[in-house]
Amino acid sequence: MSQQAVEYIEENKERFLDELKEYLRIPSISTDPTQKDEVARCARWVADHLEEIGIDTVEIEETAGHPIVYAEHCKAPGKPTILIYGHYDVQPPDPLDLWDTPPFEPDVRDGKIFARGATDDKGQLFAHVKGLEAHLQTSGELPVNVKLLIEGEEEVGSPNLTPWVLENKERLACDAVVISDSSMFAPGVPTITYGLRGLTYFEVTVTGPSHDLHSGLFGGTVPNPINELAKIIAQLHDADGRIAVPGFYDDVIALEDDEREQFASLPFDEEGYLAETGAPGLQGEEGYTTLERKWARPTLDCNGIWGGFIGEGAKTVLPSTASAKISCRLVPGQDPAKVLELCQNYIEEIAPDTVKVEFKPHHGGDPVLIDRDNETVRAACRALQKSWDAETVFTRGGGSIPVVATFSNELESPTILMGLGLDDDRLHSPNEKFNLECFYKGIETSAYLWNEL
Amino acid sequence: MSQQAVEYIEENKERFLDELKEYLRIPSISTDPTQKDEVARCARWVADHLEEIGIDTVEIEETAGHPIVYAEHCKAPGKPTILIYGHYDVQPPDPLDLWDTPPFEPDVRDGKIFARGATDDKGQLFAHVKGLEAHLQTSGELPVNVKLLIEGEEEVGSPNLTPWVLENKERLACDAVVISDSSMFAPGVPTITYGLRGLTYFEVTVTGPSHDLHSGLFGGTVPNPINELAKIIAQLHDADGRIAVPGFYDDVIALEDDEREQFASLPFDEEGYLAETGAPGLQGEEGYTTLERKWARPTLDCNGIWGGFIGEGAKTVLPSTASAKISCRLVPGQDPAKVLELCQNYIEEIAPDTVKVEFKPHHGGDPVLIDRDNETVRAACRALQKSWDAETVFTRGGGSIPVVATFSNELESPTILMGLGLDDDRLHSPNEKFNLECFYKGIETSAYLWNEL
Repeated sequence: MSQQAVEYIEENKERFLDELKEYLRIPSISTDPTQKDEVARCARWVADHLEEIGIDTVEIEETAGHPIVYAEHCKAPGKPTILIYGHYDVQPPDPLDLWDTPPFEPDVRDGKIFARGATDDKGQLFAHVKGLEAHLQTSGELPVNVKLLIEGEEEVGSPNLTPWVLENKERLACDAVVISDSSMFAPGVPTITYGLRGLTYFEVTVTGPSHDLHSGLFGGTVPNPINELAKIIAQLHDADGRIAVPGFYDDVIALEDDEREQFASLPFDEEGYLAETGAPGLQGEEGYTTLERKWARPTLDCNGIWGGFIGEGAKTVLPSTASAKISCRLVPGQDPAKVLELCQNYIEEIAPDTVKVEFKPHHGGDPVLIDRDNETVRAACRALQKSWDAETVFTRGGGSIPVVATFSNELESPTILMGLGLDDDRLHSPNEKFNLECFYKGIETSAYLWNEL
Repeated sequence: MSQQAVEYIEENKERFLDELKEYLRIPSISTDPTQKDEVARCARWVADHLEEIGIDTVEIEETAGHPIVYAEHCKAPGKPTILIYGHYDVQPPDPLDLWDTPPFEPDVRDGKIFARGATDDKGQLFAHVKGLEAHLQTSGELPVNVKLLIEGEEEVGSPNLTPWVLENKERLACDAVVISDSSMFAPGVPTITYGLRGLTYFEVTVTGPSHDLHSGLFGGTVPNPINELAKIIAQLHDADGRIAVPGFYDDVIALEDDEREQFASLPFDEEGYLAETGAPGLQGEEGYTTLERKWARPTLDCNGIWGGFIGEGAKTVLPSTASAKISCRLVPGQDPAKVLELCQNYIEEIAPDTVKVEFKPHHGGDPVLIDRDNETVRAACRALQKSWDAETVFTRGGGSIPVVATFSNELESPTILMGLGLDDDRLHSPNEKFNLECFYKGIETSAYLWNEL
């Protein structure tokens, strides 16, 4: 990046912050129908802003839901094309009374900006916008070709994004996708996330008697669906915390030695992590560390269970049914549909003949593993190194970002998950914040990145 | 019984039925505060009726709840004293729209009288009242001393009965208690129930994290309270359907060979029983028949379970807590408090250190085993034989009648459970009925019984 661009960023920090505040003042709550106009206004604001900083083509694309802002600045023939993805919608701010300052009146204190959307994802996306501006306003051009895809429905599951991506595959063609909508491993530790877990989710209902029975008159002679469901759930893990469903691990791509070494070298505060959960102790699959368990090993967790009498006091009912919601976090290599089938077959096999078992699949999502060894990743590491003056760490994430699988499958482009936030940013909670250091270093990183590419 | 008494019963059948109808017309629903006056009117009706038939002393005893009707006719010095227990209150009639004729407008059809309370317990108790009348109105005296204890709170758990019994122990002193508030094993099969199961009831709550966590960010590293609760429940039974709590069976009085033979000789329709449950199959403790399992073996059943997300759809929550309500039916020899402690110790022992387990006891009740070999039982068998012209069978009951343990513990008198109803009487349900044959033979049995004693 030119010395001019560096100085431009330094000189305009105050204005950048004022603009971010303006952006954060728009209550673009995608799930709230009463805020539909504000969501549309926010899309307009983003589009106008991209035009102001000098982006060549800016469009607002209507969908069945909230609009998508799509922009292109492709004037560097022979250079790589980068797609930046982000979202301008935000979570609802409830409960309002837990906010120290109102969610849509951004407030700066202690070097942090507090507002709904500060980190998720307005602040992180805006860092890239300002990084582009630094080039355009100093040299009049960008060192790479850039496309921006900024949706307004990320917080409601992106229902209209995948269809739009499918319809616009050629337009979206790129060499890499850059997303900043996650966290750094720790303050001051630049981070690239290269793996995400997928998901398969299902519901099991066990029926014993066809109707509730009196436990005195029938107890001891008929199958109790709660007891039987509990036995089924207990058989889903072995004594070492491994999932006991046959074939479950068959397609798992094992952690490589260098990954395990890399995870082990991270400054992970296990005591602090335990304190954050509030549990009496941590537990998981034998033979793996906590970071390996949460980032790179599949899980099977009951998310809900219910059956029989659950009111106050005692009722001696022998219930007819008991149900559980169960989900598996999947790791790269695993297929949600295949795992679902394995679970169903196993559960039906281990259930006794004296009960009926019903199986109901819910949604799933693909796990993602991104190549760590390519030119885009190396360029991102150099950019991060320059702005943070620290070496980049590689982590995986335990959750899912469905759009990453869409880009990977449909655009066949590697994605760089370059989180600028921190774990304590309280996204989705009251008092969401974004550290100003993360914002400014993020602008620098973005500006450096276009050069490094 | 005198020939006069036999003829008296035969000649007065129509009037007895009319009187029963009058009794059944009073909506003495003890749980319904708006019917408090009707419950009091019913107590008055019973007391007046006992005076009319010639019972010596009749009193209405007020309690903190509904009144107790207490009566005595003790004019046979040197003869045994029998306490008859029954209740004049009834269950609510809901759902009203499922009744073919209104619950408090008794209707006779197909040899049965349909009304709320017909069998439970107005009809069964009234048979004894008419049996006493047959003696008093023909000879002017009773061959034994009789006391009657008729409460108005049986359907709400008899909260005021035990204190009243404790305060009136001397007054209630007797050689035997006769209760007709249960069923015959089959139509035309006179039955004495000599064992009842007890109960111990508790609630278990397992806590993992101190608050709900995101299953993507934390799954695989923290204890899941639903999975852990399921493992605990699964360990409460072994593979043979026996309860795995150490010491659980220590005090169980084993079935005697003659009891098992007696049960096996009963005309039990196992297919019909299975059909009644609607379950795909029956199951229980290895080595015991269905009747043995339901009458004379202890159980451990979950009555309710809940935890995590139980709404529609899917939510990937890793919940903080999961709870279950669990109860054990106990058999003679077992102590509810001791079994509760055994269960608590075992559950706390098998739970992993990574979760917190809370144990909350609910109510319990003692099991009952009544001596089958005494003069009162033999007299009852002779009376039943004379009226039914069939041999009496001895059964046990899977449920509990708490007042029987009270009589056994406080009055130290054997109880004869001589059910006059049938299993299809639909007590507590719409279209409750009492077969007229059971009513008339019950009057005869009662009249014979006083002679046989």
